[in-house]
Amino acid sequence: MIRAGYFQFKPQFGEKEKNLNQVLSGLCKAEADLIVLPELPFTGYYFKDRHEVMRLSENPKDSPIVDALTALCRKNNFFIVTGFAERAKDKCYNSALLIGPKGLLHTYRKLHLFNLEKRWFDPGNIPLSVQNVRGVRIGMMVCFDWIFPEVSRVLALLGADLLCHPSNLVLGYCQQAMITRCLENSVYAITCNRYGADSRRLGEIRFTGKSQIVAPKGILINRAPSGKNDLFIAPLDVSLSRNKRMTSLNHLFKDRKPARYKKISE
Amino acid sequence: MIRAGYFQFKPQFGEKEKNLNQVLSGLCKAEADLIVLPELPFTGYYFKDRHEVMRLSENPKDSPIVDALTALCRKNNFFIVTGFAERAKDKCYNSALLIGPKGLLHTYRKLHLFNLEKRWFDPGNIPLSVQNVRGVRIGMMVCFDWIFPEVSRVLALLGADLLCHPSNLVLGYCQQAMITRCLENSVYAITCNRYGADSRRLGEIRFTGKSQIVAPKGILINRAPSGKNDLFIAPLDVSLSRNKRMTSLNHLFKDRKPARYKKISE
Repeated sequence: MIRAGYFQFKPQFGEKEKNLNQVLSGLCKAEADLIVLPELPFTGYYFKDRHEVMRLSENPKDSPIVDALTALCRKNNFFIVTGFAERAKDKCYNSALLIGPKGLLHTYRKLHLFNLEKRWFDPGNIPLSVQNVRGVRIGMMVCFDWIFPEVSRVLALLGADLLCHPSNLVLGYCQQAMITRCLENSVYAITCNRYGADSRRLGEIRFTGKSQIVAPKGILINRAPSGKNDLFIAPLDVSLSRNKRMTSLNHLFKDRKPARYKKISE
Repeated sequence: MIRAGYFQFKPQFGEKEKNLNQVLSGLCKAEADLIVLPELPFTGYYFKDRHEVMRLSENPKDSPIVDALTALCRKNNFFIVTGFAERAKDKCYNSALLIGPKGLLHTYRKLHLFNLEKRWFDPGNIPLSVQNVRGVRIGMMVCFDWIFPEVSRVLALLGADLLCHPSNLVLGYCQQAMITRCLENSVYAITCNRYGADSRRLGEIRFTGKSQIVAPKGILINRAPSGKNDLFIAPLDVSLSRNKRMTSLNHLFKDRKPARYKKISE
């Protein structure tokens, strides 16, 4: 059993300190083992150009935000998966960080960049992997990764019990598709989506909220409203995600025919 | 443009001639290029044992059913994808056949057998492949194949415009999941499900109807009722399934990172 959930909120573009403070105050009384935050919750999303990303992004190993989140994890004795604009020398990545009471534990760099992100960020260069949080195996993916069934499949095959999915969704497809992801892989998924808009001179991008937790067999545990702060935490029973049986004779993983799937990794 | 659809009906267990006559009369006035029938529409589904499958199954190259369907295709100038209990010497397969005015064109043998089917049938031993029907590339899959995202993915990567999906569904998950399949692959899918029950001394299995056609981007074109005959044919524009763009900078297939998906075919 793990107590896990999300904190949906509305970042303000470029206001890193204000956004961090929203998270710190939003989570200050949270009782949980693991909380997922949205994609890019500190910088905001709608960058002018790559130059602006470089200016706003941080090296997680030298970041006041990561330090503050680590202190929060220590105080509340939980873990956080958060989106993060990651600077690495002359590269920048749309990343997700796993942070715990002892600091940064893992960085995932978004593999499948959405639209203008291709101009702003470098594509991920770290293999998909699974991290252990209090005996629960979590797999990190970011936003648009959802549309590629391979991402959640690889994470589940690596043993993920729970997909942690920071998002800045603008379309309405993802929430239903994540139900399919949880059904086909028999895993949990926490999609934490931001809401509100980034309004800039360039234009405006609106985000759709409706963060959610889905259980194996595609059961929706909770879905947030589209335009309100929402902190939601639920106890998740990982014995369910470790049971890949669909019927007494069917096992979602043992029934797979990998030799017939070669085309997928060619 | 292809006019394609499904004929949902209620087979009676073991009544091959009656079931064939239902299809012949149901389709006698159909104007279409391609019609999908349910899984195992001639034998019915709930077999007592493998022995009974061997008795009721037929070699498609020596089958009065295939001959009659070929004559129907010739008369109405269309193609049929139908489920079929296929006998091949001492093996039997839960197959889908593509039949046209000139006869049998392709056999797909279900790769992922559901529950008791494992006792009745041999698993498929023919690679997934795509067939050309009047310039449209169709991919055949059968029922429970839907839960393995690899099946529709491989078919789409092979160029399928349209998934033809004969089914005998007993659960309620598939229809929504097929919407995700069509979204993630930007393909059409026709799921033809039977309805009614096979009531036998052993017990009863009920089937759920709700056959459907889904368009790329996951748009539901039509869904049948759960317990009524339904012949539905729609014009499908395959230029939509050949457009894999999600945004001006995103292409569902070119954005894939096959090197990161190795685990799937291991």
